[in-house]
Amino acid sequence: MSTISLSLDEIYQLARNTLLHNGCDNQNASILSNTIKCAERDGSLSHGLFRLPAYVASLKSKKVKGNSRPSIENLAPGIIRVNGDRGFAPMVLKIGLPAIIELTKKNGVGILAVTNSHHMAALWPETEAIAENGLIGFACTAYKPMVAPAGAKKALFGTNPISFAWPRPGKTPVVYDMATAAMAMGEVMVAARDGHKVPLGTGLNKDGKETTDPKEITKGGVLLPFAGYKGSAIALMVELLAGALVGETFSYETAAKDNNDGGPPSGGEFILAISPDKIAGTGWEKHSDEFFKKMSSMDGVRLPGERRHKNRLDKGPRKINKELIEKIKKLS
Amino acid sequence: MSTISLSLDEIYQLARNTLLHNGCDNQNASILSNTIKCAERDGSLSHGLFRLPAYVASLKSKKVKGNSRPSIENLAPGIIRVNGDRGFAPMVLKIGLPAIIELTKKNGVGILAVTNSHHMAALWPETEAIAENGLIGFACTAYKPMVAPAGAKKALFGTNPISFAWPRPGKTPVVYDMATAAMAMGEVMVAARDGHKVPLGTGLNKDGKETTDPKEITKGGVLLPFAGYKGSAIALMVELLAGALVGETFSYETAAKDNNDGGPPSGGEFILAISPDKIAGTGWEKHSDEFFKKMSSMDGVRLPGERRHKNRLDKGPRKINKELIEKIKKLS
Repeated sequence: MSTISLSLDEIYQLARNTLLHNGCDNQNASILSNTIKCAERDGSLSHGLFRLPAYVASLKSKKVKGNSRPSIENLAPGIIRVNGDRGFAPMVLKIGLPAIIELTKKNGVGILAVTNSHHMAALWPETEAIAENGLIGFACTAYKPMVAPAGAKKALFGTNPISFAWPRPGKTPVVYDMATAAMAMGEVMVAARDGHKVPLGTGLNKDGKETTDPKEITKGGVLLPFAGYKGSAIALMVELLAGALVGETFSYETAAKDNNDGGPPSGGEFILAISPDKIAGTGWEKHSDEFFKKMSSMDGVRLPGERRHKNRLDKGPRKINKELIEKIKKLS
Repeated sequence: MSTISLSLDEIYQLARNTLLHNGCDNQNASILSNTIKCAERDGSLSHGLFRLPAYVASLKSKKVKGNSRPSIENLAPGIIRVNGDRGFAPMVLKIGLPAIIELTKKNGVGILAVTNSHHMAALWPETEAIAENGLIGFACTAYKPMVAPAGAKKALFGTNPISFAWPRPGKTPVVYDMATAAMAMGEVMVAARDGHKVPLGTGLNKDGKETTDPKEITKGGVLLPFAGYKGSAIALMVELLAGALVGETFSYETAAKDNNDGGPPSGGEFILAISPDKIAGTGWEKHSDEFFKKMSSMDGVRLPGERRHKNRLDKGPRKINKELIEKIKKLS
């Protein structure tokens, strides 16, 4: 793969200029470009510049507003809703997160119900931001059906990712972000491209049979939840929290409203914040750090988030796929 | 297996008399016996009379108080702590649940932090009780190390069950309760007794190698989390929520304080309640029911909790293992 070196600022500017050229106002472009830069910085490539062409397609479809102004509303002492005004998720969260963090510090627990938002993508930016404020963060979202419930042969659930972050004052949080599908569809597509097999349990072919051939999954087949019935139960919880609870669509409804014009249908996200200061009182940081120390001292164990946080320490340039950069430059 | 038929009331009375004879006061005995009766009624046998000998051993050890009087404390507008006064979990929840339900109906979201409680056992009684009050329930608890984190060969996590319940006004809730271990240790023991194999991924032998022989897991081996890294991440979340967050012990600390006198060490539980009325507003019941209808119309799919709720409709006697009844009768 041919690559080009870009500094983190160059990555930010490339994204920002592209978005500005395609209808984003300054505020929306800056916030989304920062998220893209942070993903590249952390080595979370599938959420970095790779996404930019789809973001531009969304703007061109007019489905996503480049000048969105999300608004917040207090629904109850512990609940805030942020109406995304059809904006990109990072813009929506820029408004919603400070509000839910402030609420949770007083209330002990808070829920941010995100509606009318687009491109939820990675969830670790929001749970990590919550944890960096001394709170526990949990988030989940659904999208279009790609995963069959355990026992079924057709898709009903999205890949329905969940993210959890535990605060460690003075250190990076322990944070993870994972699909409740056995494997992300992107990984299955890469395996298909490279001629690799996937483990049994990853998905079914078009006849509803288990297969190790990724092409059979991507062409008319379906993904499976991780761990059969147990993963399916967790994917179900995500549909309910990010769909009916926040007042948004289930995955199958999201698909039904998609007109396939290149812009993705809007959707919801469920975000929970919890204050350990209010619940455990003092000393919880030390208590949980002893646990993390014990866990990471075990052979073969890595704390979630470590790899991303290690990448973050490198302030130098990043090697970006040359074809991707050329594709992006054509968008301006 | 030889069985004896007992009516639901006879099950309740058998449990109650046994507990009264072994140091429980009327209130503690009645509440715990009701939980046992409900488990037998629902066919959740591993949480019914089967547990009674262990409950008696706990009382005899004096570690669990048969005259417990749990107390509640408001820690923040959204947070209640119930100090279990070393009581059995059902007694602790009898005090804590009405308080968190009332709080959540106003606040929109609430956390019940349970401390100093014993025998958390099944979690569906609490999440289901929350759902029967029109709220979403989530609960988790940890106990002693039985599960190796993904990549490790030694136990650190408990079997760390999670339970989730979604309310369906006028119908039984959709509810599940599952270990985050690949298989519950009880099931592995049954497989060992009956000479069956277990799937690869269930556990490791004493040398840290994967095995399909359940005896190798029960004798010096260790269970694995469901679904490798993903299940391990969820088991980690449970340790943090039910341990450090509520101000109780991690599994490894719980084991360290166990003096093996037959009474289990005390521990904590994390319970979350959420009001869909406050978040989604009106119409969420219909919206989610359409989803459940769609899901249960798929070939091969069953909504979680259905089997237990179907058992519940049968008001007749239950067939109880004769040896178990004889064992229990010797305790009075």
